[in-house]
Amino acid sequence: MTTISEAPTAAREPTLDDVRVAAKRLRGVVTRTPLLYPATPGFPLANEVILKPENLQVTGSFKPRGAYNKLASLPDEERARGVVAFSSGNHAQGVAYAARLLGVPATIIMPQNAVPAKLAATKRLGAEVVQVGTTSQERLEYGARLARETGRALIPSYDDPMIVAGQGTIGLEVLEDRPDVEAVVVPLGGGGMLSGIALAIKSQRPDVRVIGVEPAGAADGQASFQSKRIATWEKVDTIADGLRATRLGDLPFALISRLVDDIVTVTDEEIRAAALALHHGAKLVVEPSGAVAVAALMHGKTGVEGKRVVAILSGGNIDPALLAEWLI
Amino acid sequence: MTTISEAPTAAREPTLDDVRVAAKRLRGVVTRTPLLYPATPGFPLANEVILKPENLQVTGSFKPRGAYNKLASLPDEERARGVVAFSSGNHAQGVAYAARLLGVPATIIMPQNAVPAKLAATKRLGAEVVQVGTTSQERLEYGARLARETGRALIPSYDDPMIVAGQGTIGLEVLEDRPDVEAVVVPLGGGGMLSGIALAIKSQRPDVRVIGVEPAGAADGQASFQSKRIATWEKVDTIADGLRATRLGDLPFALISRLVDDIVTVTDEEIRAAALALHHGAKLVVEPSGAVAVAALMHGKTGVEGKRVVAILSGGNIDPALLAEWLI
Repeated sequence: MTTISEAPTAAREPTLDDVRVAAKRLRGVVTRTPLLYPATPGFPLANEVILKPENLQVTGSFKPRGAYNKLASLPDEERARGVVAFSSGNHAQGVAYAARLLGVPATIIMPQNAVPAKLAATKRLGAEVVQVGTTSQERLEYGARLARETGRALIPSYDDPMIVAGQGTIGLEVLEDRPDVEAVVVPLGGGGMLSGIALAIKSQRPDVRVIGVEPAGAADGQASFQSKRIATWEKVDTIADGLRATRLGDLPFALISRLVDDIVTVTDEEIRAAALALHHGAKLVVEPSGAVAVAALMHGKTGVEGKRVVAILSGGNIDPALLAEWLI
Repeated sequence: MTTISEAPTAAREPTLDDVRVAAKRLRGVVTRTPLLYPATPGFPLANEVILKPENLQVTGSFKPRGAYNKLASLPDEERARGVVAFSSGNHAQGVAYAARLLGVPATIIMPQNAVPAKLAATKRLGAEVVQVGTTSQERLEYGARLARETGRALIPSYDDPMIVAGQGTIGLEVLEDRPDVEAVVVPLGGGGMLSGIALAIKSQRPDVRVIGVEPAGAADGQASFQSKRIATWEKVDTIADGLRATRLGDLPFALISRLVDDIVTVTDEEIRAAALALHHGAKLVVEPSGAVAVAALMHGKTGVEGKRVVAILSGGNIDPALLAEWLI
């Protein structure tokens, strides 16, 4: 069994101060997404749930928060050599966006079968795109070698303290905008966003419940959380293409197992229903991964239904053909 | 030629104070929609245009602002008898929403060929729906008779000072959130929203340009604006079903001809391109009528390109089948 791990396990844990520094760095760089209160009669959670729409974020997902924070925290001489990242989707655009703003050359390794729209968006942001293989293992190996040979920094998608701190700024914003929040429900893939939000919130307000939501077909995170050690799923199967990581990052796992209250799962059919409810009832374009928190709330899975809940919508980069099929 | 007119021309013009009173009434009743700054590389106006997304408003359009203000301003004994309105779309839901909140019986007259989703949404809000004919003339006559016979107030969709004042709260919010705004671009159908916003903005800031946008196939408003008298178009033809009014209201016309800087038009193809750009690039579900301001800016029609512009997105109640067709 090959274990994919992005970072040395010895990486230090980020702190609340790291998240606050990230928030300062991100000012004017990413969108401070508003909280939304969907009240259309067609939305099943109208008047019950508050949405944090990171689908309205720059590049269509939360990823530039962590990517920019990581790039900005590199020593000048290291950053000047450029960066390398591998991703099939939103992290690619996040790194490309951050690199362009900082004037840093970026090479993004994407799969040979990448969605054309995601390839095009990454190139449009000025990154060099190299298409390698079809598995994340192939991209990891290629990326690690390229980074080594060229002296460029490899920008992980979640297993890094600066990435986690960047994503954690979402949690700071939730607390600032709604100090009376009682629970936050967060999508879970590799764990960067969930661990960052849990860090930002629990360090200040241990009473606020933080719940992770994973697709049932990629529930390695729930298995890890329950068994208290990282589980790797050789095979994952879910429509939520942003949450197909086969194992949690080491750093996210450490934070999640200590800080998160529960991890629950949703089926692909529940995800589809939630994405359509958000489309029809909240007028938001959300990708499958971005709909899992609302899916869990709609189907009574979180244990925080009825509380003052903020649901994080992580992104909106859905394949238009898939959405069209769902709409018909 | 039959002229459809909703209100006596003698109705008094609303003032800035009316708009301010409306804003107080609407607090906690409708969503104070945020300003959005789309920056996704796929959005052609990224970093140039600020969006006011009334598609995220309660019921999916700006209409409850005016409807609630009108209902709340009726004398108690008149309101208690209930209200009547006719509409094929968003005004129906706006009145139904306001009536439910105020505990007032509402009868909404909708066309026999109404979109099933709009019928269902109006009923879900608790209104009684009566389907009559297929033309707005038939609905007007039926509604006027029903109102007369039952002593219920007829709630016009735009030709009324309290409706205009309610829609004008959008303009107040724009000025509050961006006092440095240089231009506002607004969809134009019967003129309720454009006249209200022009009133709110020009009374305080005559230097801010206010531009109306109409579909080329229903450009009676532009013709009226240019000829300085209300033009009626017997036939209108546009995909923008919310902007198919065949003539401006008398009250809106008076305000628009005095306060608005220009009225420009867009084609159905330009509307489609804008709705898709908002979908892919700003992750917002916008109906054709809601996309005309962005369409005009994308195609350089407004004369305010390059300024600090706020574009009003009036609604998001698009037929899912139409959107699916566009997405494929």
